[in-house]
Amino acid sequence: MLGKVALEEAFALPRFEERQRWWASLFSTDADKHVKEMNDIQKIRMDYAEKHGVGYQILSYTAPGVQDIWDPVEAQALAVEINDYIAEQVAAKPDRLGAFATLSMHNPQEAAAELRRCVEKYGFKGALVNDTQRAGKDGDDLVFYDQPEWDVFWKTCTDLDVPLYLHPRNPTGTIYERLWADRKWLIGPPLSFAQGVSLHVLGMVTNGVFDRHPKLQIVIGHLGEHIPFDMWRINHWFEDRKKLLGLEKQCKKTIRDYFAQNIWITTSGHFSTTTLNFCMAELSSDRILFSIDYPFETFADACDWFDSAEMSVTDRLKIGRENAKKLFKLGNYKDSSA
Amino acid sequence: MLGKVALEEAFALPRFEERQRWWASLFSTDADKHVKEMNDIQKIRMDYAEKHGVGYQILSYTAPGVQDIWDPVEAQALAVEINDYIAEQVAAKPDRLGAFATLSMHNPQEAAAELRRCVEKYGFKGALVNDTQRAGKDGDDLVFYDQPEWDVFWKTCTDLDVPLYLHPRNPTGTIYERLWADRKWLIGPPLSFAQGVSLHVLGMVTNGVFDRHPKLQIVIGHLGEHIPFDMWRINHWFEDRKKLLGLEKQCKKTIRDYFAQNIWITTSGHFSTTTLNFCMAELSSDRILFSIDYPFETFADACDWFDSAEMSVTDRLKIGRENAKKLFKLGNYKDSSA
Amino acid sequence: MLGKVALEEAFALPRFEERQRWWASLFSTDADKHVKEMNDIQKIRMDYAEKHGVGYQILSYTAPGVQDIWDPVEAQALAVEINDYIAEQVAAKPDRLGAFATLSMHNPQEAAAELRRCVEKYGFKGALVNDTQRAGKDGDDLVFYDQPEWDVFWKTCTDLDVPLYLHPRNPTGTIYERLWADRKWLIGPPLSFAQGVSLHVLGMVTNGVFDRHPKLQIVIGHLGEHIPFDMWRINHWFEDRKKLLGLEKQCKKTIRDYFAQNIWITTSGHFSTTTLNFCMAELSSDRILFSIDYPFETFADACDWFDSAEMSVTDRLKIGRENAKKLFKLGNYKDSSA
Amino acid sequence: MLGKVALEEAFALPRFEERQRWWASLFSTDADKHVKEMNDIQKIRMDYAEKHGVGYQILSYTAPGVQDIWDPVEAQALAVEINDYIAEQVAAKPDRLGAFATLSMHNPQEAAAELRRCVEKYGFKGALVNDTQRAGKDGDDLVFYDQPEWDVFWKTCTDLDVPLYLHPRNPTGTIYERLWADRKWLIGPPLSFAQGVSLHVLGMVTNGVFDRHPKLQIVIGHLGEHIPFDMWRINHWFEDRKKLLGLEKQCKKTIRDYFAQNIWITTSGHFSTTTLNFCMAELSSDRILFSIDYPFETFADACDWFDSAEMSVTDRLKIGRENAKKLFKLGNYKDSSA
Repeated sequence: MLGKVALEEAFALPRFEERQRWWASLFSTDADKHVKEMNDIQKIRMDYAEKHGVGYQILSYTAPGVQDIWDPVEAQALAVEINDYIAEQVAAKPDRLGAFATLSMHNPQEAAAELRRCVEKYGFKGALVNDTQRAGKDGDDLVFYDQPEWDVFWKTCTDLDVPLYLHPRNPTGTIYERLWADRKWLIGPPLSFAQGVSLHVLGMVTNGVFDRHPKLQIVIGHLGEHIPFDMWRINHWFEDRKKLLGLEKQCKKTIRDYFAQNIWITTSGHFSTTTLNFCMAELSSDRILFSIDYPFETFADACDWFDSAEMSVTDRLKIGRENAKKLFKLGNYKDSSA
Repeated sequence: MLGKVALEEAFALPRFEERQRWWASLFSTDADKHVKEMNDIQKIRMDYAEKHGVGYQILSYTAPGVQDIWDPVEAQALAVEINDYIAEQVAAKPDRLGAFATLSMHNPQEAAAELRRCVEKYGFKGALVNDTQRAGKDGDDLVFYDQPEWDVFWKTCTDLDVPLYLHPRNPTGTIYERLWADRKWLIGPPLSFAQGVSLHVLGMVTNGVFDRHPKLQIVIGHLGEHIPFDMWRINHWFEDRKKLLGLEKQCKKTIRDYFAQNIWITTSGHFSTTTLNFCMAELSSDRILFSIDYPFETFADACDWFDSAEMSVTDRLKIGRENAKKLFKLGNYKDSSA
Repeated sequence: MLGKVALEEAFALPRFEERQRWWASLFSTDADKHVKEMNDIQKIRMDYAEKHGVGYQILSYTAPGVQDIWDPVEAQALAVEINDYIAEQVAAKPDRLGAFATLSMHNPQEAAAELRRCVEKYGFKGALVNDTQRAGKDGDDLVFYDQPEWDVFWKTCTDLDVPLYLHPRNPTGTIYERLWADRKWLIGPPLSFAQGVSLHVLGMVTNGVFDRHPKLQIVIGHLGEHIPFDMWRINHWFEDRKKLLGLEKQCKKTIRDYFAQNIWITTSGHFSTTTLNFCMAELSSDRILFSIDYPFETFADACDWFDSAEMSVTDRLKIGRENAKKLFKLGNYKDSSA
Repeated sequence: MLGKVALEEAFALPRFEERQRWWASLFSTDADKHVKEMNDIQKIRMDYAEKHGVGYQILSYTAPGVQDIWDPVEAQALAVEINDYIAEQVAAKPDRLGAFATLSMHNPQEAAAELRRCVEKYGFKGALVNDTQRAGKDGDDLVFYDQPEWDVFWKTCTDLDVPLYLHPRNPTGTIYERLWADRKWLIGPPLSFAQGVSLHVLGMVTNGVFDRHPKLQIVIGHLGEHIPFDMWRINHWFEDRKKLLGLEKQCKKTIRDYFAQNIWITTSGHFSTTTLNFCMAELSSDRILFSIDYPFETFADACDWFDSAEMSVTDRLKIGRENAKKLFKLGNYKDSSA
């Protein structure tokens, strides 16, 4: 289909090319190609988009990005640099490209202020944050945003009426040593990504973030980072047990309510019709958004799958673009009504 | 249906009644009832089984059990005590009850020897182990069984031709502090259980345990601890990327092969027809086994659901008992051919 | 859930009580109860609705009704009588009850005029017609509405902006003798109903009715009368073969387009979550509407199933009432925003 | 995958080439190619099989075949000619080809005798019959095999321990005129085929054929000719209503029992993973068999779909060949254990 919107699409700063090359060697079979695709904005990805019917992309800084920088000052400086850079890039193609703000998540007020700057000054569509913020003097701490001090940040999101995309990053520090060092092939898409994000987003649910910010909209990728699979089981324990023991104090709705009112999932990196059908049954096609995860995945894999997947015309339009147009208040863009 | 087999059914030693009561207070809304059901073998659970059409149960010591004891000597002593106790209990009803061995997992040779003793002396049906063994002088270490030194243990499992049930336990030590302390409502069935077991069993896959022990049979509960949801995504990354980068050395088959040849899932604590249908599509009804998770779940919830779930007669029989009869070489038991 | 809308809910004229009793003996195990429920409007069904959370019902004359009367004059007279009767009945509870017009389908102009009268004079929500009109001097003919002479009728539907519910009726005449007399247990819900309606509605598709009337809205019950099952297969043959041979002349869109733009399905008499999930995957939850098929089915069976079926909050609201509110432009009714 | 077995694969007698060409013009976009493929046995289809991993094919005479011949003598003569012809053809490649007997279905004894001859003399794998036998002096009658006089035939099937494949044929006579003449685009795969076979096989169920012949095995194509879609609804009406009114006399089991014990479905002409998943949920992968429907469908469409469809290794093997090997007692054939 034409005019698809894609939401988990990464770029990097060209000055980090060497770092990107080393990073790519961990998962890519063609590191040079990966680095080129990552650092390009105006040409390669636009050609892919043209060829595969993607009308609009919201770009975000590649993981782990600023969330891997445990020095708060350095982290903030890099976030600002990235935002200024990508603002200029997307301004060149306003009907094809948008951006998510990159944020240092050491300090809620600072993160909120930078988000506000990006949305108000540059028209960014929200923010994309890579799971927990690495912190502490040796980088072994993890900052979660499900704690009360982050309310100021979430309030800013809802004041600005923009969603936050909670993207994974690799395990670091003690967690890495304890759990992942001896089973490194599971780091990333096969397992660690979903474990990190599902903990974080369900932490937001159970710590009451959505009760305090009922209009907050969170997007998670990879068809929901495992959570749809356990929707019945989570609901069963929350409603039949944990609420009787105190969970209800800060988490008054059901898990199904939060997934109906606050949480969206995307198809990034998970091009399975059987799993998509399951997610439609558990979450509704109203809450599912197309995405690719470029350049970790290819436009061809994502779009060939999505365009030919057995699906109703109605849901293909909704998942492919109409849901995104509503969530991000997108106006006209290339093939937006094709 | 009559003659169902149930596999994730817990008991405790009566001498730990007080500890059970404290434990139950963390998740149960009626701790007294829970403790009574946990410590009973011959009466309460047999009445439930009779009422709900469960013909055969394989009992196992409740989590975290011996895996929570970081002193190796104490752990081994408790394991032996538990095994001797339950051997006598199940011997009273050989056509209704079987047992999984409880094992201290500090030392592979010791674990192997105790498994052999239980199978050869008592006719136990295999073992059930609660995720990683807590270890180290302050209990902060975690022993995973996906490392090469455990080959001697896995060889014993295949020599004895018995399966191992990999059951969850709660996070402990640094992992608890870093990830779970601030989001305690997610500990257990809502999230931490699946994260622990899926890491462990996929660690066995990627570290080559099943390549070195191709006849090894592992059972996991709760409809597969999230893994079926990402079968496509795991396969995509393993086959298209990671094998090119070296995973293939020790992990020669596909993730789908291991789930067809080495891994079984049970319905314990996950009484959802939609999710069961999804698991049948991804794993085949040939690899799914009924279970309850008593006394954390009720016979009524599990059996009323399973007996009336929309399903073919063929699959209800296979999942309800025929698959288990083959896997555990069960002979005649109550209603085994009803 | 509260405020559900139900659409395939039958009544009869009390003066036909004896005929209803005979008819009920063919399928009901309590003919007296069935006849009472069928002839009641104000009391029994309102109590059920109250108890089971149905906020609004659109009533229709029970099958085969006027479609079984092969004398055109008699048919038209009965249709008018029924419409005048039910108009008065529903006027007593405008926030709880609506009606579908009953139509004699011998003559397109006459049917169109009566529909217009019912909509304009009484505010009926559309019409419900029982498959083909029995016709001919001995009642052996069948009038299908997929022929060109019916364009005037379909134009009236779209001019009035009301949907038509295509409901089944039993096979009659030669068709009965040839196919159904020797396998009478298949008449009705087990098979003949779906065969009749699927032929008729796909006849409308392939004979170009929806191409000539692109705004026409048709509702079919029982989760789509088999058609969703063959969505892939129909699409494959229409697109890959038949359009090359001439079908394209009058049927320019794909079968999936017609199901996205012109056709709705209801849950009447088909209370299966597995089949509902399948229909959501093939047609989208946007095109599915709750219904009961009372008094052939019970409020309890339909509502207990729907209210507790594993489903997202989003889709339960859409299927349960929001889709119907949009399609039938329903304003406020009991619990319409509960 | 290699070694697939395919079961609904048509051939014709070369002497009817002109008739085939006319027939092909009704549905094929390349009638010449179709006729060549239909009349070939040894070369074209074997090359396709080699290329697409089909190890064994059971061939059958193309529809409507002998079922369209209303003169009983002519029908029987043609059946014998076809069987002698294909026996010689498949004898040339016994490890690649088998055959279903073609039968005149005018007379149960005659049909039984010819089946016995084909199985005992030639080793045929069963029979394939094209729905009802056209009969009567002007060809307007339809012989159904669900009547008591056919018990002698079904007894022969079970005595010989061979299945019967109930294949569709086009509507004829009055049925054609009444229902299909004005909606010809629905004849064949889009609708009429499934309506015919589902009526016939459910007629066998409700008229007690499977109660009187509990070992009888019937195969139907196209993922079950709509019946799986209504498994819940049929069961609901049979168990909750019709059995109370008398159906139980000859039909003692549930519809799910017959589908578990007597009926198989194939994937012929229905290459949809979503529908296959649904059928696995309703009928079990144990009762599903791969098939193509060549030359109406292509080896490429069927095999490319099946080989890459998202599915467990277990079910791909079962559906692709293992179920067929058991049902048809196939020994070694090309790649039968690849």
